[in-house]
Amino acid sequence: MSILVVGSMALDTIKTPAGEAPEIIGGSATHFALGARFFTGVRLMSTVGKDFPERYLDELTKRGIDVSGVHRADGRTFRWTGSYEGDMNAAKTLSVSLNVMGTYVPRVPAAFKNSPYVFLANIGPEVQEAVLRQVSRPKLVVCDTMNLWIATKLPALKRLLKQVDILVLNDGEARMLSRERNLVAAARDLLRLGPKAVIVKKGEHGLLLAHGKTIFPLPAYPLAKVTDPTGAGDSFGGGFTGWLAETGSLSSKNLRMAAAYGTVVASFTVEDFGTRRIEAISRKDVVRRFNAFRNLVDF
Amino acid sequence: MSILVVGSMALDTIKTPAGEAPEIIGGSATHFALGARFFTGVRLMSTVGKDFPERYLDELTKRGIDVSGVHRADGRTFRWTGSYEGDMNAAKTLSVSLNVMGTYVPRVPAAFKNSPYVFLANIGPEVQEAVLRQVSRPKLVVCDTMNLWIATKLPALKRLLKQVDILVLNDGEARMLSRERNLVAAARDLLRLGPKAVIVKKGEHGLLLAHGKTIFPLPAYPLAKVTDPTGAGDSFGGGFTGWLAETGSLSSKNLRMAAAYGTVVASFTVEDFGTRRIEAISRKDVVRRFNAFRNLVDF
Repeated sequence: MSILVVGSMALDTIKTPAGEAPEIIGGSATHFALGARFFTGVRLMSTVGKDFPERYLDELTKRGIDVSGVHRADGRTFRWTGSYEGDMNAAKTLSVSLNVMGTYVPRVPAAFKNSPYVFLANIGPEVQEAVLRQVSRPKLVVCDTMNLWIATKLPALKRLLKQVDILVLNDGEARMLSRERNLVAAARDLLRLGPKAVIVKKGEHGLLLAHGKTIFPLPAYPLAKVTDPTGAGDSFGGGFTGWLAETGSLSSKNLRMAAAYGTVVASFTVEDFGTRRIEAISRKDVVRRFNAFRNLVDF
Repeated sequence: MSILVVGSMALDTIKTPAGEAPEIIGGSATHFALGARFFTGVRLMSTVGKDFPERYLDELTKRGIDVSGVHRADGRTFRWTGSYEGDMNAAKTLSVSLNVMGTYVPRVPAAFKNSPYVFLANIGPEVQEAVLRQVSRPKLVVCDTMNLWIATKLPALKRLLKQVDILVLNDGEARMLSRERNLVAAARDLLRLGPKAVIVKKGEHGLLLAHGKTIFPLPAYPLAKVTDPTGAGDSFGGGFTGWLAETGSLSSKNLRMAAAYGTVVASFTVEDFGTRRIEAISRKDVVRRFNAFRNLVDF
């Protein structure tokens, strides 16, 4: 059951207390795809510039990700430079150049229109909606968003949320969108905007999943060393949606398992810069850590 | 199996977004005792002034707490005035007057010297150690501390930690004492100071329990409304130590259950100002919420 993901692809330059990595592959769609590929086929839609190394696309293809929907535009690739300090819970953006992402108008390839699962990674809500309109009756639509769109495109975002099944966002965004300081209240409040489930990501503190009347709190997988948090949220989305696509069930129990798989996938992502770690592991590693995680949190 | 607790008793004046409460009973030993009493007998040691309402002590006695170790000194009771704003994760101290707590020299009553369980709530480490010396071979010693003692009494605190079994402290204190920013690394590092287990409390984000080579992450019980966080950490200590005293086992599994009971007890505390909610509930309420919590976090 393939997942169609649309979002950014980037060349990231990252500095953390553990070191630096210049011009490595990044972007929300990239991190999502690498997290989802353990569970299901992934169809990737994004845009890159003429300067984007072909071998980066080859590495994705080797991992079962269909990159035929990646448009190579005339111009430079989206670039982001950021750094993390202290507890590394928030990135400091040092520079950002949208380049070809700034004018990206996604056109869903004919072969992708029947995708049963859709993940709308963090791009403008009108663009997310435009993609959704090109897909024929998907079984499940999951979306992410960010503070910028909450601040500048709220009506479009609210219209989009009426058409998605699950909303994934971080704690600051959940507070901003709901105007609730308490995160449990925020998660519950966001259900009123349309989604059947809402996941509030809290970085090192795990997540809250609101679904119907229940709140499922899940801690993060405990790591004594975080090398680079970039992409953790997107690869969480990949693991989460990937598990749902593989299993097909939206039961409360299965949503929780999906959240735990997403958490485990994200825990690998932060162990090295960018996509290095998540590219290097196999499904077996993910399943092994999932089982360890289950034992770890049991009481 | 009785627990001896030594710590502060206070008259608190608290302001939160939910309202205000003037001159209500507070203090670390008070909140601990009210959290532990669901599980075992509690012997309370502290000091209050001549102005401390007798009925406050009567209310504790009614709930099975032995207040014969509460010394009524010549002077005024310890007073704290604080407020909470926004996400309420940290109190803002508006005023503090140690009064009789400032000169408190605890003398363990003869009838308390055989206490098998000891909780050293947040008072100076020399005072905590002086109490410990007066108890004959306790089965388990748990202690709390605070940033003030880490900053001003580090050698005394380190000496104390060599004599305690379990250290309970909050995230900021754990970082300060270990000099590690990563909380998993901090919790592990603190084991090297002597305790067999370390609990790092993270407020609304739950806790980390380090024990041997394992880290047990536990989320907080999710509440959509927090009225007053005062005493949550101390009543956590009460529920945690109370469960260990009732059951007698220090197995990894039982430490986790104790942490979950502490979490549940603390979740009641924050539902109303000061001790109001925790005074009003019964063991049955605690057990019911514990079972609900277990189902809630299961995946």
